[in-house]
Amino acid sequence: MDGYQHKVQYYETDQMGIVHHSNYIRWMEEARVDFLDRIGWDYKKLEESGLFSPVTSVSCRYRRSTGFSDCIRIYVKVEEFKGVKLKLSYKMKNQNDVLVCEASSEHCFQDASGRIVNIKKQCELFYEALMENYSEKE
Amino acid sequence: MDGYQHKVQYYETDQMGIVHHSNYIRWMEEARVDFLDRIGWDYKKLEESGLFSPVTSVSCRYRRSTGFSDCIRIYVKVEEFKGVKLKLSYKMKNQNDVLVCEASSEHCFQDASGRIVNIKKQCELFYEALMENYSEKE
Amino acid sequence: MDGYQHKVQYYETDQMGIVHHSNYIRWMEEARVDFLDRIGWDYKKLEESGLFSPVTSVSCRYRRSTGFSDCIRIYVKVEEFKGVKLKLSYKMKNQNDVLVCEASSEHCFQDASGRIVNIKKQCELFYEALMENYSEKE
Amino acid sequence: MDGYQHKVQYYETDQMGIVHHSNYIRWMEEARVDFLDRIGWDYKKLEESGLFSPVTSVSCRYRRSTGFSDCIRIYVKVEEFKGVKLKLSYKMKNQNDVLVCEASSEHCFQDASGRIVNIKKQCELFYEALMENYSEKE
Repeated sequence: MDGYQHKVQYYETDQMGIVHHSNYIRWMEEARVDFLDRIGWDYKKLEESGLFSPVTSVSCRYRRSTGFSDCIRIYVKVEEFKGVKLKLSYKMKNQNDVLVCEASSEHCFQDASGRIVNIKKQCELFYEALMENYSEKE
Repeated sequence: MDGYQHKVQYYETDQMGIVHHSNYIRWMEEARVDFLDRIGWDYKKLEESGLFSPVTSVSCRYRRSTGFSDCIRIYVKVEEFKGVKLKLSYKMKNQNDVLVCEASSEHCFQDASGRIVNIKKQCELFYEALMENYSEKE
Repeated sequence: MDGYQHKVQYYETDQMGIVHHSNYIRWMEEARVDFLDRIGWDYKKLEESGLFSPVTSVSCRYRRSTGFSDCIRIYVKVEEFKGVKLKLSYKMKNQNDVLVCEASSEHCFQDASGRIVNIKKQCELFYEALMENYSEKE
Repeated sequence: MDGYQHKVQYYETDQMGIVHHSNYIRWMEEARVDFLDRIGWDYKKLEESGLFSPVTSVSCRYRRSTGFSDCIRIYVKVEEFKGVKLKLSYKMKNQNDVLVCEASSEHCFQDASGRIVNIKKQCELFYEALMENYSEKE
């Protein structure tokens, strides 16, 4: 799957002259939203079908700094998923194809009342769509 | 009334080495929340009593740049209010008492169904609390 | 000139369920950066040629709320410019072509030492490129 | 050492009605800036003495959601430091003393030319000040 593309904005820089590290967490969300969109299970569809998916952890390793007007490509994969805890991995590369950041995030799924949902059992089609992008596949 | 105090954060700077101008809009909100708190009508109380108050306009004139770890004082006043459209004004000063920004914002009030509420008629105590801080008073 | 396109991100929403009003100020910057790019005078070129352009004021009138995954088109025009103070105007429309926000920003130009630069006199080509997009032209 | 205090702002919430997870990364920076301040080595002093300290990784585990106007206390400790790679840990608690987030960040130190600095060897007083807050001490 092609990477999601983010153009670095001026307001994302800080006084070190580089992108502030907190923005990568937001780019992960952008790429995740795009990823779910591409596999046919966009956020709106999830929320409309009563599924909420809070982020339970994030982790980010910064390899190279990035700067204003850089064009970042973000590649999302399913790292681990048995139905309850979804772990995604992210690789971010700049316009010169240099790896700038490696990251991961974990998510669970809840219904409107806050109960944990097992996607494998209760939403099989979504489970299968996710596992199509399981990282070991490649 | 004393000003609301905001300490400038590193993540609020940009690559020009100064605070990014979009943050002042957020500081206005911080000061407004604090202002409503002080006059006894905090956001939570408003939302719990079914009142929503969307921002309908903002305006900001930047007088001096501010930088990391500056301590900004923000003074809020009621500029105009007859019950429907609330106009607030803001003066921001740095730690050396230099005026750094003058701003204003406009707000309306809605009930849960989105209908416009006339605060003077429907929420008189809140109207009076606001008018205690009418700018012409000073 | 076609509008600049911004897809609304999840992290731009607030607990009212709509886009937080401070983000429009950032979208104005995105559209401005794109505008300068299109007329051949991108930020990097300006900064490399020793020109800095601080924002001296912004103003935003919110017409309709916007929400997650909305696609906003932003149209930038030169509203006023005689060489020193550049005033830009912005019209933002959603995917249904509904006007959601009208805004303006003012900018001056400085050299590296902070001195005000008259663009009409000192950077004529840039002045002409800007005036190609003067709003009265249409 | 007492925790650093952060009052949750309205603009930090998202449409789930809770604080957007990216903000915790910013709070870590706020607490870190405050921590360095308290031990006598604030960011400005570091940058003025030619030391830059990029973030090389962050990691955040969200235990409970937080919401608008919550008051978060953040406790910073030195988790690992031998002079080159500084690892800090963070514990965040809400106003009811409930643990809401556990996090860590890693940092290196560079001089103005980008060379890695060994703090233990080249800036012994700073090293000692940090090690006063080594987590195993408690």
